Amino acid sequence: MTEWFRDELPCSTIPVDDRAVHYGDGLFETVAIRDGEPRLWEYHVERLQTSAARLGLEAPDESRLRSGLVSALGRAQADRTRCVAKILMTSGRGPRGYRRPDGGQMTILTGISDAHTTPDACYRDGVNLRLCNTRLAVQPQLAGMKTLNRLEQVLARNEWNDDSIFEGLTLDTDGRLICGTMSNVFLITGQGLVTPAMTRCGVSGVMRRHVLTLLDKAGIECSVRDVGVEELWSSEDIFISNSQYGVLAAKRCSERTWRPGEMFHRIAAMVSASGIAEGPA
Amino acid sequence: MTEWFRDELPCSTIPVDDRAVHYGDGLFETVAIRDGEPRLWEYHVERLQTSAARLGLEAPDESRLRSGLVSALGRAQADRTRCVAKILMTSGRGPRGYRRPDGGQMTILTGISDAHTTPDACYRDGVNLRLCNTRLAVQPQLAGMKTLNRLEQVLARNEWNDDSIFEGLTLDTDGRLICGTMSNVFLITGQGLVTPAMTRCGVSGVMRRHVLTLLDKAGIECSVRDVGVEELWSSEDIFISNSQYGVLAAKRCSERTWRPGEMFHRIAAMVSASGIAEGPA
Repeated sequence: MTEWFRDELPCSTIPVDDRAVHYGDGLFETVAIRDGEPRLWEYHVERLQTSAARLGLEAPDESRLRSGLVSALGRAQADRTRCVAKILMTSGRGPRGYRRPDGGQMTILTGISDAHTTPDACYRDGVNLRLCNTRLAVQPQLAGMKTLNRLEQVLARNEWNDDSIFEGLTLDTDGRLICGTMSNVFLITGQGLVTPAMTRCGVSGVMRRHVLTLLDKAGIECSVRDVGVEELWSSEDIFISNSQYGVLAAKRCSERTWRPGEMFHRIAAMVSASGIAEGPA
Repeated sequence: MTEWFRDELPCSTIPVDDRAVHYGDGLFETVAIRDGEPRLWEYHVERLQTSAARLGLEAPDESRLRSGLVSALGRAQADRTRCVAKILMTSGRGPRGYRRPDGGQMTILTGISDAHTTPDACYRDGVNLRLCNTRLAVQPQLAGMKTLNRLEQVLARNEWNDDSIFEGLTLDTDGRLICGTMSNVFLITGQGLVTPAMTRCGVSGVMRRHVLTLLDKAGIECSVRDVGVEELWSSEDIFISNSQYGVLAAKRCSERTWRPGEMFHRIAAMVSASGIAEGPA
């Protein structure tokens, strides 16, 4: 259950003429709240602001976003020290037609949900992945952003209902490896670390950015570039990242199996040491 | 102004957890109501049902769609004999996450708006088009459908605010001509008629289908295939089609100008004779 708030008040509906409903004309962020504080907040704010500018939307300032979040946390029934906050921003209400109205007022909503609990075994042993049949279209104009146009992710996620599969990886329509339906992916190869570039499609996750920053600080090189699916199969180890659960090794994807190795454990320890204390100690 | 109805009742809002808001997980149709009847109704219903099946959604039956429409028309303040009905269908409410809930109930809304009035001069002299910078991503899984993921159209339509420009044409990311932001396009060339295939991206418009059916009945061949943008510039004449206004010749696109020729007038007369009496008599 998610409790939604708008302008400091609970809200259970949005106007039927909001452009999110008709066009998906907006963006969202899913923020992990830990110890009562939004984790990786500056990355979330920066992505939302950068994405808004790319879509031609007025970027909300940090203080407005934070006050909406603080107000929602203060009113929600959920455990406000550890939960999930979804910030949803749309171009607002408008008459019929794709053209945005002059002087339109953005809609900003904050939803508070209970935190996910990822089983310890996922951290210890890794998770099962699958390769989705749904492909992501190559669209540089929207690449990297968490827009409200998410039909590809819906189709990909609805390909399986086997709860033993934790996540599905998606390729683009050219067959390159991009990301999971709600995660990014890193490969540990004989030639070093690599993660797909988010310049064609996919979402540039905040945890991906955090991991890249930690790797950089530790002097561990990670190549950010186009990745063919064959590199997935030939990798020594792979792991996924997400704002809520941090990093998780894959133990299987389709028929390929892996065992989380030394490099993954080193990276997981770096992530934990940075304050992303999600797994078993 | 659009008046919205749901389950026979006026509605001004939708639940904040509807999957249209978060993912654009749904479809829509924009139906021209003429003489109190939905025009090209069977084409709208068929597209909605076919698209729903492709998205893995339960297809609403024709009688349910029609009764929603009739009820909305009966209650709306707009001129019920001549107006626009927008049918919006979503996968319904759901908890957080891309996965559709088991046993979810579709949302079906009907919105009634005043009819568009296209100036006589547009029918007589043609309209000005522009070529948009926004490209459409190649995504065969979504091609042809009117889904609620319309950010590309929003970006394309927001490229201009010069009211002398009637419509913008869009190319796909490979540079092929696809369609307008809210229309389809036909080229009249020295080698005959051609309209872009809707297998990579774009929307298969009901008026496009009607025109293709009329051409077929009249024994006029129209090739439906991939079209390079160079064919746009070298065409003898071009026209656009849309469920509300029928067909309109282009008099200009970017720097290229045309004069509606004999073949266009013949097609426009066929469309009029079929009951699409939008233009000047």
